[in-house]
Amino acid sequence: MNIDELLNKLKDGKISVEEAKEHLKMLPFHDLGFAKIDFHRRLRKGIPEVIYAPGKTKEQIKRIVMEMKDKEKVFITRASEEIYEELKNIENCRFYKECNLIVIGKKEIKNRNGYILVVSAGSSDLPVAEEAAVTAEELGNRVRKIYDIGVAGVHRVINYMEEISKANVVIAVAGMDGILPTIISNFTSAPIIAVPTSIGYGTGMNGLAALMAMLNSCSPGIAVVNIDNGFGAGVVAHLINEKINSQ
Amino acid sequence: MNIDELLNKLKDGKISVEEAKEHLKMLPFHDLGFAKIDFHRRLRKGIPEVIYAPGKTKEQIKRIVMEMKDKEKVFITRASEEIYEELKNIENCRFYKECNLIVIGKKEIKNRNGYILVVSAGSSDLPVAEEAAVTAEELGNRVRKIYDIGVAGVHRVINYMEEISKANVVIAVAGMDGILPTIISNFTSAPIIAVPTSIGYGTGMNGLAALMAMLNSCSPGIAVVNIDNGFGAGVVAHLINEKINSQ
Amino acid sequence: MNIDELLNKLKDGKISVEEAKEHLKMLPFHDLGFAKIDFHRRLRKGIPEVIYAPGKTKEQIKRIVMEMKDKEKVFITRASEEIYEELKNIENCRFYKECNLIVIGKKEIKNRNGYILVVSAGSSDLPVAEEAAVTAEELGNRVRKIYDIGVAGVHRVINYMEEISKANVVIAVAGMDGILPTIISNFTSAPIIAVPTSIGYGTGMNGLAALMAMLNSCSPGIAVVNIDNGFGAGVVAHLINEKINSQ
Amino acid sequence: MNIDELLNKLKDGKISVEEAKEHLKMLPFHDLGFAKIDFHRRLRKGIPEVIYAPGKTKEQIKRIVMEMKDKEKVFITRASEEIYEELKNIENCRFYKECNLIVIGKKEIKNRNGYILVVSAGSSDLPVAEEAAVTAEELGNRVRKIYDIGVAGVHRVINYMEEISKANVVIAVAGMDGILPTIISNFTSAPIIAVPTSIGYGTGMNGLAALMAMLNSCSPGIAVVNIDNGFGAGVVAHLINEKINSQ
Amino acid sequence: MNIDELLNKLKDGKISVEEAKEHLKMLPFHDLGFAKIDFHRRLRKGIPEVIYAPGKTKEQIKRIVMEMKDKEKVFITRASEEIYEELKNIENCRFYKECNLIVIGKKEIKNRNGYILVVSAGSSDLPVAEEAAVTAEELGNRVRKIYDIGVAGVHRVINYMEEISKANVVIAVAGMDGILPTIISNFTSAPIIAVPTSIGYGTGMNGLAALMAMLNSCSPGIAVVNIDNGFGAGVVAHLINEKINSQ
Amino acid sequence: MNIDELLNKLKDGKISVEEAKEHLKMLPFHDLGFAKIDFHRRLRKGIPEVIYAPGKTKEQIKRIVMEMKDKEKVFITRASEEIYEELKNIENCRFYKECNLIVIGKKEIKNRNGYILVVSAGSSDLPVAEEAAVTAEELGNRVRKIYDIGVAGVHRVINYMEEISKANVVIAVAGMDGILPTIISNFTSAPIIAVPTSIGYGTGMNGLAALMAMLNSCSPGIAVVNIDNGFGAGVVAHLINEKINSQ
Amino acid sequence: MNIDELLNKLKDGKISVEEAKEHLKMLPFHDLGFAKIDFHRRLRKGIPEVIYAPGKTKEQIKRIVMEMKDKEKVFITRASEEIYEELKNIENCRFYKECNLIVIGKKEIKNRNGYILVVSAGSSDLPVAEEAAVTAEELGNRVRKIYDIGVAGVHRVINYMEEISKANVVIAVAGMDGILPTIISNFTSAPIIAVPTSIGYGTGMNGLAALMAMLNSCSPGIAVVNIDNGFGAGVVAHLINEKINSQ
Amino acid sequence: MNIDELLNKLKDGKISVEEAKEHLKMLPFHDLGFAKIDFHRRLRKGIPEVIYAPGKTKEQIKRIVMEMKDKEKVFITRASEEIYEELKNIENCRFYKECNLIVIGKKEIKNRNGYILVVSAGSSDLPVAEEAAVTAEELGNRVRKIYDIGVAGVHRVINYMEEISKANVVIAVAGMDGILPTIISNFTSAPIIAVPTSIGYGTGMNGLAALMAMLNSCSPGIAVVNIDNGFGAGVVAHLINEKINSQ
Repeated sequence: MNIDELLNKLKDGKISVEEAKEHLKMLPFHDLGFAKIDFHRRLRKGIPEVIYAPGKTKEQIKRIVMEMKDKEKVFITRASEEIYEELKNIENCRFYKECNLIVIGKKEIKNRNGYILVVSAGSSDLPVAEEAAVTAEELGNRVRKIYDIGVAGVHRVINYMEEISKANVVIAVAGMDGILPTIISNFTSAPIIAVPTSIGYGTGMNGLAALMAMLNSCSPGIAVVNIDNGFGAGVVAHLINEKINSQ
Repeated sequence: MNIDELLNKLKDGKISVEEAKEHLKMLPFHDLGFAKIDFHRRLRKGIPEVIYAPGKTKEQIKRIVMEMKDKEKVFITRASEEIYEELKNIENCRFYKECNLIVIGKKEIKNRNGYILVVSAGSSDLPVAEEAAVTAEELGNRVRKIYDIGVAGVHRVINYMEEISKANVVIAVAGMDGILPTIISNFTSAPIIAVPTSIGYGTGMNGLAALMAMLNSCSPGIAVVNIDNGFGAGVVAHLINEKINSQ
Repeated sequence: MNIDELLNKLKDGKISVEEAKEHLKMLPFHDLGFAKIDFHRRLRKGIPEVIYAPGKTKEQIKRIVMEMKDKEKVFITRASEEIYEELKNIENCRFYKECNLIVIGKKEIKNRNGYILVVSAGSSDLPVAEEAAVTAEELGNRVRKIYDIGVAGVHRVINYMEEISKANVVIAVAGMDGILPTIISNFTSAPIIAVPTSIGYGTGMNGLAALMAMLNSCSPGIAVVNIDNGFGAGVVAHLINEKINSQ
Repeated sequence: MNIDELLNKLKDGKISVEEAKEHLKMLPFHDLGFAKIDFHRRLRKGIPEVIYAPGKTKEQIKRIVMEMKDKEKVFITRASEEIYEELKNIENCRFYKECNLIVIGKKEIKNRNGYILVVSAGSSDLPVAEEAAVTAEELGNRVRKIYDIGVAGVHRVINYMEEISKANVVIAVAGMDGILPTIISNFTSAPIIAVPTSIGYGTGMNGLAALMAMLNSCSPGIAVVNIDNGFGAGVVAHLINEKINSQ
Repeated sequence: MNIDELLNKLKDGKISVEEAKEHLKMLPFHDLGFAKIDFHRRLRKGIPEVIYAPGKTKEQIKRIVMEMKDKEKVFITRASEEIYEELKNIENCRFYKECNLIVIGKKEIKNRNGYILVVSAGSSDLPVAEEAAVTAEELGNRVRKIYDIGVAGVHRVINYMEEISKANVVIAVAGMDGILPTIISNFTSAPIIAVPTSIGYGTGMNGLAALMAMLNSCSPGIAVVNIDNGFGAGVVAHLINEKINSQ
Repeated sequence: MNIDELLNKLKDGKISVEEAKEHLKMLPFHDLGFAKIDFHRRLRKGIPEVIYAPGKTKEQIKRIVMEMKDKEKVFITRASEEIYEELKNIENCRFYKECNLIVIGKKEIKNRNGYILVVSAGSSDLPVAEEAAVTAEELGNRVRKIYDIGVAGVHRVINYMEEISKANVVIAVAGMDGILPTIISNFTSAPIIAVPTSIGYGTGMNGLAALMAMLNSCSPGIAVVNIDNGFGAGVVAHLINEKINSQ
Repeated sequence: MNIDELLNKLKDGKISVEEAKEHLKMLPFHDLGFAKIDFHRRLRKGIPEVIYAPGKTKEQIKRIVMEMKDKEKVFITRASEEIYEELKNIENCRFYKECNLIVIGKKEIKNRNGYILVVSAGSSDLPVAEEAAVTAEELGNRVRKIYDIGVAGVHRVINYMEEISKANVVIAVAGMDGILPTIISNFTSAPIIAVPTSIGYGTGMNGLAALMAMLNSCSPGIAVVNIDNGFGAGVVAHLINEKINSQ
Repeated sequence: MNIDELLNKLKDGKISVEEAKEHLKMLPFHDLGFAKIDFHRRLRKGIPEVIYAPGKTKEQIKRIVMEMKDKEKVFITRASEEIYEELKNIENCRFYKECNLIVIGKKEIKNRNGYILVVSAGSSDLPVAEEAAVTAEELGNRVRKIYDIGVAGVHRVINYMEEISKANVVIAVAGMDGILPTIISNFTSAPIIAVPTSIGYGTGMNGLAALMAMLNSCSPGIAVVNIDNGFGAGVVAHLINEKINSQ
């Protein structure tokens, strides 16, 4: 049934409006509900709208936020105090200073089984780890954190073995040699989202060494997001956790 | 003195508690179950043992396989026909020619809700996509495949909208500009595991362009594995699907 | 007017089927003719379907060709003699050996004002230059060629000044230091599509040096395609020439 | 002895033909029109003179401008407010603050068919997009702009389908994954000039990821200029539009 | 149930050997001495705990230091005066200004045979050389220094031939072309730890040129640490010197 | 109308000075001697015409050679035995097998003061060193060679001190760490042309490590040509030697 | 006292021959014993002469060997069976096939305390590990090997804890993510020489990922040699072991 | 004859002091005049001592200068006004502000044939061009300068044809696409020393694009120094000019 037949049938009363809409959705190569699906996806699943602050004036950011704020949760990454000053009178606007993240929209509270675990290697990685943790929390997940796990040697991971093994998803944040996700993978069968950070110097190349180590891990079960992309890791972990909780 | 002797001596009063503690510290640590934990993790969760074939002789590979084969499922990636000839008399040895993968061990059949979807951009990406699909299938997952989705333009993705939107996890395989995962992410709230392939030329740089595009996707919800690493994507997708089905 | 109103009006006879179709096209966030537009664009404008041969078997290529051949012109780049053997019985199948290009579909003859000029620096660049020239010709453009222009020194360009200055578009193909497009730009006000080639060695880095020189040209008016991408340059030049001839 | 003297002497029989030829060879070559040709090309076609400000003092810039300003239109890219202060008393000197561009010379008004469309992905890309738009406008083209098209998902491009499909040339500006030009190419048969921007972080590598994605686009019809080179894109688009309008 | 309770119950016959083994497997592994082994290694051998300052607040650093200070020697690399102000009241806290290194813990005095030699090419390399020297000294080694050896030409190395030839280990610090370790290796049979520095410009690429030259030295006997990693070189040299003195 | 006709018409009063000027502008510029200047430069100074063989068929090469051979000396670099077979019947055609160089044209014998010295580090660098030496010799220079100078340690350079110090120019060829030119520079006040070779592995990166070391040499007086570009080094050294001998 | 005064004093009997020699050594900027020291260093300490085979003909290699063989031990790395055929009649010539190493000269037997440990991650790394082990053994060291330690998970390292902790030096060989040396460093206070191998694919970049991970290890005590440079690691370990045994 | 025999013979009057000196020079592997040669080379030939200022305190620089100033000419590159303040009371200390160069020592005046020509592409390249020019002048060469030659198009080079063609050496300074040296090479048979500058943006990569273009120039006769290394270019040009004038 092509579009003409479809519309003619509707006109002739052979099908109802509802049936016409159903068929329209099924027609090859197009989709009547295209954007709405996306809208639904975002709203129901909690994929946030994200504004990357660098390169934008606070006025530009405010304008974008005002357009979005009624329908969707908005995250502003790499935001400054100054931007927050501009936005703080907006309802439900929160500034997470440790990770330079502004979130606008109601904090969701969901009844979830299990938790997302955020693990970081050193305290210099904290802003990235926090960005991941806050993102996941703001999207309604239970989040646990183990920071500085690598401060005094890889073996200390063993102390947290149980907490690691029981997580639904693990976000592992590390700079320098990026070894943490591989170590973690020995203690859990949860999927691991690895986040390289730009911590380090010389051949660390602003996180490239960590990224490459993570992509080349000899231990399967690890997927990677961009350098310093705590927000992205938080969203991926959230999507996985949604699927787990939707069963 | 092994662990049994040690504990029996303590029980029989032949050594003190303090002496027992001292001896315990000296035991090879795996005796205490360490390695078994790992063994359990792998066996129960289905993380396969993997042998990367390049650089190894077929004799070396056979020797490694023989040590492992009783306890664990073994995958041999980037394997040749010749290696298969060496191994084919081993029980439960299968060769997946399209992706140069050998699997040894019983094919698992599990009762699963939902499926993993493997999507690829072009038919040149097929070996990598197949490696991902076979890996996931061999680990007991239901797998659906949509290949060549990008052959005649990005818009054709729309035809598969429903199948994409209902997957538990999507593995998106693409070379060249690596655009596929970002397009896919508009049609699903499932987590997406992106696999860059080395297909392309010039500044494609054997998959680096695709990798970088995927890591920098403006759409959140995508995590990435190494270039051409279909096996790794299959394992991550499997771990996620396990978690989903374990609820 | 939203989708429900629209369909109800049609059902109630307040608008005609044609009007309904027109409105459907105008609805926000979707498009009933999505794919068709693309189809038209390709067919009318002559953007060819392209199959990148490496990594595909000749059987795979044949299968793809058979699906496409009735509706669209098909180009197969980086093709081998062997692939041509597989395809040569298909109607209107031509093999351009110098540039490893197979074209399937009728050769278009169009009445065009002006020509596309393909200029190359050295005879090693010939396969790429030919790929550009054949692509443009097959799409119905008049094409002129000046090859080896750089063989004995940049100054020889001056001999061809007139031919260069009168072209509608110039495709400039060069490896090594990639200087040719910049030289050419002194003799024409036509847009220049620069194609770096992988000819050279050492720090030439398979075309990267030429690419970088072209992107950083001190002369404005140059845009660049991928290394060795003669096909891409041919298509861009064709699209420009179409626009020129459509006035 | 300048060219007039030389020819007059020959005419008057004071020197022989052979002597005249010898002298001609010795004349600075531009006396023979070489430079004038270039001058004509630039003046008639509107290729502007460009001064790249970084690394130059405002005094140096002023000196260069003063030499050029009578004969040609001058653009100063990456200029600061401070430089503008130095130059603002020059007749017809304009400062475009959003893109740090100073233009000196009369604004051209031309009667043109069609328009150049400038599309950008995010508001952080605005300075580069504006540089392209202003450049094209200053050279006498009609310019339309669609900014922030990628802010909330690639699908929103569909809203602008008609405007995109009718442009003479499209300039597509994007950072991060550089996906925009490829998406745009599905909606138009116009040539697309892609401009990667340095927006992003980590493996975005100051625009390299976007550049590579654009050069490796699976959709033909896209040519690329240097990272952040809005000016260059504006000039290429202008040259194409000139050719279209010259028919 | 901790390890003592467990063993006591076994001894008292309250649990069987089998039950004891089961429980042992469940204990956090470090209870069994795992971490202590590491502790012993560090304490006895003098491998210091290291805190990399960049990206940490002075408060974070203080907190970490307070946890560690009683048991172990702590080094804080890339520290600022400001951090020292925060920490200076801690007992045995020293600030080495030339190399931005803070050390906390008693300065060890050991009776050693032989010395570690730190050689640097230019005075710009001094902070890195000093970091290596101070690290080795603080760990109880005798250290000699020859700085600026390359200031006026490679041949001046000859003046220090004897001092070079008698060292137990040589740390050779150099930026730019990184030639120094190779020159040094002609005068000694001691192992050489090479430290590339980020001194230089252009293709020196912040130390990459020096690193690559060192890794590719035509003279065997050289091993390399990260760019600017004076601390790492000091530790490796110390470990070698410990082994030498332990015989 | 050629230049002679033009000037004769002016002389004969058939055209005015203004008309003559107009026509002069239209003449192909080389008619006015432009190309001849270049021709003279090449012929008198001995800058050879060079054909880079890779990517060209032997037939293409022969055709180019036939066009050039009467007026100029021709070098064919990276040539094969097979190409030589095609060309060997051409008068004065020589094949230098060790460096895959074909030279066509009479061997020049010039009366020169002083010599060009070619020094190489290892015997693997020999083909590049030979290409430099043969090029310089064929252009009429006296050439001396010291090969394998680095085989057993940098200090052996001293044995050749006198020969090094008296050269007019030194060509220093080296792979791996590229240290040789810097060492050489301690023994001569001649300009040094450094040639990195692609000998080595791993981080040697096909000559990049050597190139970077040479560009960053702490010893001034060294200029560099492309990796493996023995021919280029030979030409630069020849040009310098020409200038020295022209005084 | 300059050289003339010195020699005159000797001639005049004012100083003895011994005094003259002492003074000669003290003269600024030169050294009478320069090469001899080097000679002694090599002979006594066992730093072998090394010939890197690729790029050399078997005849060239033979010629170099014949010059060296009487005085020194010679290693030929990356040698082929064919080269061995050419050399096998030379006295004391051995071919180590697994690592393509030829050694010429008597196998040294030394009385040593302690051993060098060579550890490798996977069996693909075996050729590099063997090159390191054979090199160290041929130079007279006791060598122990633990190969494939990473085949089934990092935790298996624990089984070898004692052997690792007691080594004088550890050579740790690994490709892919290069994690092994960092793991090893938790079990020993011996210096670790890390050797990245080119095993892996994609972003492994022929060993670059492993190299970068090793250089950026969060565990101090590791120094690195070039990718695949087993020979170099063997020499560094030998030099350290010599120093240890010389006390 | 070894050193003992030699000295004994001298003592016994069997050889003269002159003969002894001659023999001393001939002794294997060493050289009595080693440093003096270097000393002579530097003093007579005017290779200056160079201090690279970044990373050094003004006190360190002063100390180094004081040690050197009596015997040699000293250049301090990348120096600041502040450093000059520290040094300006030293006799014969000059600050060249445009290129941040301090020179200490008498300005040499030499009687030279011919001149060194410094050509630069744009006024942003001026500091680097000036560094080259001042260096060459300070070493006693006649220097001519043509700056901004590329400001309005490559063709303007023709105006300076004669001046270019008559230079002894040409230093060509250019950023961006680095095309200038190649253009220049069409007008001269002098050797060309090319200096890439870090002027530009995006893929210009701080001079890498220019460097690569220069190394890959299709025109032979060009050698390259490090990015922004005007000093190095000045020294190489000086050494060439010395050789020319020494005939």
